Amino acid sequence: MTSKAKQSPRERLLEAAATLAYRDGVGVGVEALCKAAGVSKRSMYQLFESKGELLAASLEERSSAYVARALPAADDERSPRERLVHVFERVELQAGEPEFQGCRYLAVQIELKDQGHPASQVAHRIKGGLTAFFRAEAERGGASDPDLLARQLILVFDGAGARAGIGADSLTGLIAPTVAALLDAAGMR
Amino acid sequence: MTSKAKQSPRERLLEAAATLAYRDGVGVGVEALCKAAGVSKRSMYQLFESKGELLAASLEERSSAYVARALPAADDERSPRERLVHVFERVELQAGEPEFQGCRYLAVQIELKDQGHPASQVAHRIKGGLTAFFRAEAERGGASDPDLLARQLILVFDGAGARAGIGADSLTGLIAPTVAALLDAAGMR
Repeated sequence: MTSKAKQSPRERLLEAAATLAYRDGVGVGVEALCKAAGVSKRSMYQLFESKGELLAASLEERSSAYVARALPAADDERSPRERLVHVFERVELQAGEPEFQGCRYLAVQIELKDQGHPASQVAHRIKGGLTAFFRAEAERGGASDPDLLARQLILVFDGAGARAGIGADSLTGLIAPTVAALLDAAGMR
Repeated sequence: MTSKAKQSPRERLLEAAATLAYRDGVGVGVEALCKAAGVSKRSMYQLFESKGELLAASLEERSSAYVARALPAADDERSPRERLVHVFERVELQAGEPEFQGCRYLAVQIELKDQGHPASQVAHRIKGGLTAFFRAEAERGGASDPDLLARQLILVFDGAGARAGIGADSLTGLIAPTVAALLDAAGMR
């Protein structure tokens, strides 16, 4: 990770927005964001039209790292079933991290309560990409209904993240048999 | 429903908190709550120690109606499997209502990001009651692992509510086969 001193004001704002919005919610104030980034409000508004645009940009900026962390490598030689299971193994691992509070993209959409908000739209698009990955693997693996299986898997992904994020469940011994039951029901190889 | 004129200031505050926190999030201001309830701030603070206590009380107050709406009647003669399916039929129905934004108890916990907050604790307890219902029916229905099935069902409940609440899925044709696959895998009668 780059040291703070070497980051531009824009990068520092993006990092502050990602960290504070995840930890404290989208209601985090502009003052707090600017303070954490060490950037004046004036500079912030020169870089971003609004706090909403900053939030959206911070989600966008993290999306490649998110996809890289969640998905298997494009060229790995595992079966479609194993590639799907991989995603849920990562969810279970992440859920065990102390700062885990669930999926940031789901949280942003629930908190904003406005699906037209720029940050909601970024979140919606990123999760749509994950659903498309599920669907493609479902189809490659011969699922009886790839659309249904993809919807089921993203539902489990969001339910698991939400429950672990609020500390209601550890996911241990839960997510693997749940995903297996759905893959079995779909006849996935 | 009682007309506003006949409700006490306490009842009006509880209703305003339930409505506005659900629609706008837990960040809704005390001013907005008091205005919607037609109650002065001074009166509010005489009735509730804090906005947090008001939120907690509003969740608590709705819990019996919530349980009545979500669960089958205690004395219905359907099988445990049918009684479990009933809950998810209700979720699908509610998800079709225009003002639906997902499960209010999950949203409160995600938004507050503080599981020690009085409102989070009420929410946690109410969802624990739902999980206990799932577990009891799973056991009565001969599920191979009633604990696991209960955790799976509450995960699906929260995942489905969250995805429908943000408008990412309608749940139509999704929730029934998902629940059926899990009940089948558990060997539920």
